[in-house]
Amino acid sequence: MTSNDVRVDARALQATVQAIFAACAMPAARAYLLADSLVFADLRGIHSHGVLRVPEYVVKLTRGGVNPRGVPQIVRQTGGCLVVDGGNSMGQIGAHFAMQEAIARAQVHGIGAAAIRGSNHCGAMAYFAVQALPHDMIGIATTNALPTMAPWGGVDKIMGINPLGVAIPAGAEQPIVYDAAFSGSSHGKIRIYQQKGLPLPEGWAMDRAGRPTTDPIAALDGLLMPIGGFKGTGLALIMGVLSSMLSGAAYGAELGNMVDGPQPGLDGHFAAAIQIAAFEDVARFKARVDAAIRQIHACRTAPGFDRVYAPGELEAARAAEYTAQGIPLNAVTLADLRRAAAGLGVACNL
Amino acid sequence: MTSNDVRVDARALQATVQAIFAACAMPAARAYLLADSLVFADLRGIHSHGVLRVPEYVVKLTRGGVNPRGVPQIVRQTGGCLVVDGGNSMGQIGAHFAMQEAIARAQVHGIGAAAIRGSNHCGAMAYFAVQALPHDMIGIATTNALPTMAPWGGVDKIMGINPLGVAIPAGAEQPIVYDAAFSGSSHGKIRIYQQKGLPLPEGWAMDRAGRPTTDPIAALDGLLMPIGGFKGTGLALIMGVLSSMLSGAAYGAELGNMVDGPQPGLDGHFAAAIQIAAFEDVARFKARVDAAIRQIHACRTAPGFDRVYAPGELEAARAAEYTAQGIPLNAVTLADLRRAAAGLGVACNL
Repeated sequence: MTSNDVRVDARALQATVQAIFAACAMPAARAYLLADSLVFADLRGIHSHGVLRVPEYVVKLTRGGVNPRGVPQIVRQTGGCLVVDGGNSMGQIGAHFAMQEAIARAQVHGIGAAAIRGSNHCGAMAYFAVQALPHDMIGIATTNALPTMAPWGGVDKIMGINPLGVAIPAGAEQPIVYDAAFSGSSHGKIRIYQQKGLPLPEGWAMDRAGRPTTDPIAALDGLLMPIGGFKGTGLALIMGVLSSMLSGAAYGAELGNMVDGPQPGLDGHFAAAIQIAAFEDVARFKARVDAAIRQIHACRTAPGFDRVYAPGELEAARAAEYTAQGIPLNAVTLADLRRAAAGLGVACNL
Repeated sequence: MTSNDVRVDARALQATVQAIFAACAMPAARAYLLADSLVFADLRGIHSHGVLRVPEYVVKLTRGGVNPRGVPQIVRQTGGCLVVDGGNSMGQIGAHFAMQEAIARAQVHGIGAAAIRGSNHCGAMAYFAVQALPHDMIGIATTNALPTMAPWGGVDKIMGINPLGVAIPAGAEQPIVYDAAFSGSSHGKIRIYQQKGLPLPEGWAMDRAGRPTTDPIAALDGLLMPIGGFKGTGLALIMGVLSSMLSGAAYGAELGNMVDGPQPGLDGHFAAAIQIAAFEDVARFKARVDAAIRQIHACRTAPGFDRVYAPGELEAARAAEYTAQGIPLNAVTLADLRRAAAGLGVACNL
């Protein structure tokens, strides 16, 4: 939270954003879901995938070619597996539907998996991974993304950073919720360094010739750097194959580029659910996850750290705080929301 | 290949190593499999998981508490999922069996998954992932490992680098075969830098206080660094949960430590298979994977690179060369093999 941030009530934010999407011709339940996925990210402090996206989503829904009334449908199914066509709906609609179907199949087969095509930007992957938690399942969600990386050793922008979300049920502790891309950083973070005139940390970016750089301007003109060199690009490739090639969606550069944006209705995702009880006593599993989390808490800290967190724990603490005290939104995001609401004739209570 | 290396015929190497394991009381088919997994790694140039391990494996099998006659058994099954108890066999025996069972279930359910407990060191993960390829399936294999990393922000060695192997069928191109741990490097590579008196690359290690270091001695006394900071330790945690907590195996420090080694029969792994045809036309899938690989080949190179490879391609090229011209083994490994053979009364044709 910075000095320009204003605390906004999460429920009021949800209501306004839902009304904005409803005014874009989305049916109520789907407008709710789309708003919920953005507010979920803001509550966890992941503002890059939060309501900051509303103006961009409004453009997609009203004149960007995304179908606000698109209905996801199952187009293929075998055992625990299925393919969903999102019907050119926003990615959240198809991915949420697909994860529900994967969970239903995991109830029967122990494990279920869904590939999604005919889709669009789907927001934070954790939103779908956590759907599995109330069912005592492990949730896995990944997506294809517009290309911003080169394969390791190359300089052509042909690979997405293809984020992965994984949620694992715990007992008394917060569940493990992992959500990250396979790049060292993101364009959004690099832009913040550029605005502040600060050099980038090592490992974030390469210039357009493929040389590591700490210059934000060279980085924005260049490539995002994968984590772990060939490891990061290899993992991103795998996520891209699962998301796009099992589903029949566009892959990498087939989807579009960062300048012109994605072509509507061509994106793809992948979601899977693993039923704990198919393998292990659920109580014992959760007790062991709790123990692993407590072992992390008990860990002595490295210089510069005052606490060690399990994946998703910091985000869960933020969500508790922001639910109680409001979500800190910056002035630009808030003004954008008010403008989006006004443009659609939606009453804005923010 | 360095000047001290000797080219060894892959089939002769396989035969000798198999005979060594048979002389450790392993039944022939299992001695073959164990030898094959090590020669597979050497053929791909991954000598850290190759026959260099023979002396250590002989100790495990003869007086280290691993059961050379241990038989993996299915102890639980539901739909596409199963739990295998390795019966304290070498990890390769249980993991290979489990992947075969996962593949059989993926034939029926579209996706299959196996968690393995009662196991031991299992060598290169790619060996199990590639089992899926002839069945036109995607193979996934991961394992728990002895702790060598701290969770991000900590300094206690409580996390394994828990490698992941993934194999994806291609058409005319080599299949995609990814196999890597979630650390920037390994103890083996750091030891080579120590021997040569060279500073380590950035991103490989931290000293015991959790400060990044390029000093090999401080690194060996310290911690392996994860790839991508919290991302690498998060992914390693997820692989540890899949391998140990779904199966009931030991997790991280429960298995032992790098000084005393692992406790026999407590390790765990995880293997899964995804049937392409459950989602997509197999020929179309493979053609698209080929196109993605060719896009990688066509990529302009970064400074210091003369070619861009898809994951596993360099290893496949090495395997072709080494199959034809022999596997380059260094003098120490070769002497160790001869000593192991002699100690067990096995004729050594190397």
